[in-house]
Amino acid sequence: MKILVLNGSSRENGNTEQLTNVMMQGVAHTYVNLRDFYIQPIVDKRHVLGGFTEVADDYEKLIELVREHDILIFATPIYWYGMSGQMKLFVDRWSQSLRDPRFSFKEEMKTKKAFVVLCGGDDPYVKGLPLLQQFQYIFQFFGTEWLGYVIGKGNAPGEVLNDKQAIQQANYWKKVFRSF
Amino acid sequence: MKILVLNGSSRENGNTEQLTNVMMQGVAHTYVNLRDFYIQPIVDKRHVLGGFTEVADDYEKLIELVREHDILIFATPIYWYGMSGQMKLFVDRWSQSLRDPRFSFKEEMKTKKAFVVLCGGDDPYVKGLPLLQQFQYIFQFFGTEWLGYVIGKGNAPGEVLNDKQAIQQANYWKKVFRSF
Amino acid sequence: MKILVLNGSSRENGNTEQLTNVMMQGVAHTYVNLRDFYIQPIVDKRHVLGGFTEVADDYEKLIELVREHDILIFATPIYWYGMSGQMKLFVDRWSQSLRDPRFSFKEEMKTKKAFVVLCGGDDPYVKGLPLLQQFQYIFQFFGTEWLGYVIGKGNAPGEVLNDKQAIQQANYWKKVFRSF
Amino acid sequence: MKILVLNGSSRENGNTEQLTNVMMQGVAHTYVNLRDFYIQPIVDKRHVLGGFTEVADDYEKLIELVREHDILIFATPIYWYGMSGQMKLFVDRWSQSLRDPRFSFKEEMKTKKAFVVLCGGDDPYVKGLPLLQQFQYIFQFFGTEWLGYVIGKGNAPGEVLNDKQAIQQANYWKKVFRSF
Repeated sequence: MKILVLNGSSRENGNTEQLTNVMMQGVAHTYVNLRDFYIQPIVDKRHVLGGFTEVADDYEKLIELVREHDILIFATPIYWYGMSGQMKLFVDRWSQSLRDPRFSFKEEMKTKKAFVVLCGGDDPYVKGLPLLQQFQYIFQFFGTEWLGYVIGKGNAPGEVLNDKQAIQQANYWKKVFRSF
Repeated sequence: MKILVLNGSSRENGNTEQLTNVMMQGVAHTYVNLRDFYIQPIVDKRHVLGGFTEVADDYEKLIELVREHDILIFATPIYWYGMSGQMKLFVDRWSQSLRDPRFSFKEEMKTKKAFVVLCGGDDPYVKGLPLLQQFQYIFQFFGTEWLGYVIGKGNAPGEVLNDKQAIQQANYWKKVFRSF
Repeated sequence: MKILVLNGSSRENGNTEQLTNVMMQGVAHTYVNLRDFYIQPIVDKRHVLGGFTEVADDYEKLIELVREHDILIFATPIYWYGMSGQMKLFVDRWSQSLRDPRFSFKEEMKTKKAFVVLCGGDDPYVKGLPLLQQFQYIFQFFGTEWLGYVIGKGNAPGEVLNDKQAIQQANYWKKVFRSF
Repeated sequence: MKILVLNGSSRENGNTEQLTNVMMQGVAHTYVNLRDFYIQPIVDKRHVLGGFTEVADDYEKLIELVREHDILIFATPIYWYGMSGQMKLFVDRWSQSLRDPRFSFKEEMKTKKAFVVLCGGDDPYVKGLPLLQQFQYIFQFFGTEWLGYVIGKGNAPGEVLNDKQAIQQANYWKKVFRSF
């Protein structure tokens, strides 16, 4: 089981990253910061003659990484009660991959497992719930198995390490991921 | 009451635009397509010495438009059960405006009214609900009055015009907006 | 298509009833007030030797009505951001019907269509959304087709008739129900 | 800080009870099973001349218990993706207490803290989220501080004890409650 962490945070060493690090300690995995990849916003060409056209950015690299892994961990700070724009840009582009004739993105996603890490400063345990529901619909669309999620609370970098509930959850999932 | 429509769609003349057009017929308003503005993803510098720094993009123009209007209509296609990446990029940057010393973004937003238009192809009347809940938290954060929302169903451009429920709703709100 | 309205309101001629009446004008249907039926709370005996036992109340009559109809309209006031206790008592007892050897409740429900009417006084268009999501899971469990929903705003009886948006929606669905 | 557990389960020694017991081990508290109290459904008389009238049931005893405690733990199995009918009957009656001239229910609730325990068999970590959102609105209405929640997975009694994530969470909150 190859594990890929997709970190949607905009800053280095932020709470999302730190909480994810706790969870992935001693777990073999690939880690990418979405901010290091240049991703253009989707242009919806599903109903345009000729369909989607090639886009000159780093999306292809990311989607190849997704395809090569079995477990996808979506780690995102809660920005305005949703996933970060960086992560949303990436997810939106999946509509293009769904039409990619080179492979069946939907079939491939169906065989994967997914996990979600959310960190936020404004009551994330409650105000993060719509974002979890959004992920539910996303995984449901593909038939991807959703393993679970961890929510952490923190604003200034490092604060999440004081969220004992989050750390405990991260440690619980660490054992699960190690067992894969 | 000055009205601003912020359209988050990636394509011209898509369902979101068409539904919004029905609603705004005969209503004085400013209309912008977010896709026509180059917006960089937020870099969270809230806890960095020196704070946020100037970004060379079109965000400033957009936020000026927001500031000049009294009613903000967020019109977005439902992409992957959330607002479009284009719109999310813009919203994320509000974190920077919150720290802008030139004006009190939070106080200004508090005096405005908001409205949401959602269009989607996959059961938007149900699967759009988490996105509405996200908008709720956003408006609640500012204390912005949320006037209401319209949901429309459609995939190929123009399909939403066959969603009689949506059209009827749009016509209802047209009267409301004309009365402002 | 035989239509059954299950009204969960505790009072006569309340907003839920009035809004539903607008919607059902000229539509052949059976109408029951759940408050007129004595329903005992479920006792979960799924894992008890012998299983569920007969309960001396009016549940049987109600479930027979459900079985005899093709479209179920769940009309409930929003009490504390959920369906009324009266309606919840009824729904909870479905767990017993699922184990009833005389018929396959799950299979029968799968062939039906469902509709939801909600009325509330405290921002029902937003604070009624979790209840809609609950109904989604209920209908999804059975595979029941969910036709749609109407939300109305009102506290004192009759107030909902001033909610033009709700009335318009009710009129829209009236046409749909007449066409069945 | 006096703690009251309100258990909405319909069966003895079910998962909700067992998970709550883990959490409350060594924590001084009052424990009541709502099923042991006879609670009549609310009759909404807010807009009736004379208002609410006395009801011959055990509600008064329960509400006195609520008033005497500082922390309220709502422990309920997830029945049909909502709180149990037993608990809903009780909560619905709060509308009557809000009009009770003998005390200010709203003011008193504002000073309390609340906690939620949910147990369900059908994907409770996701399908329990609308119920959490409902509780959010309930506590928000009063201004009650919401301490947090624990979700457990289980169908047959005792299964929740195998949900290590839930047990770990319960143990975390045990420490918190012991510290009050």
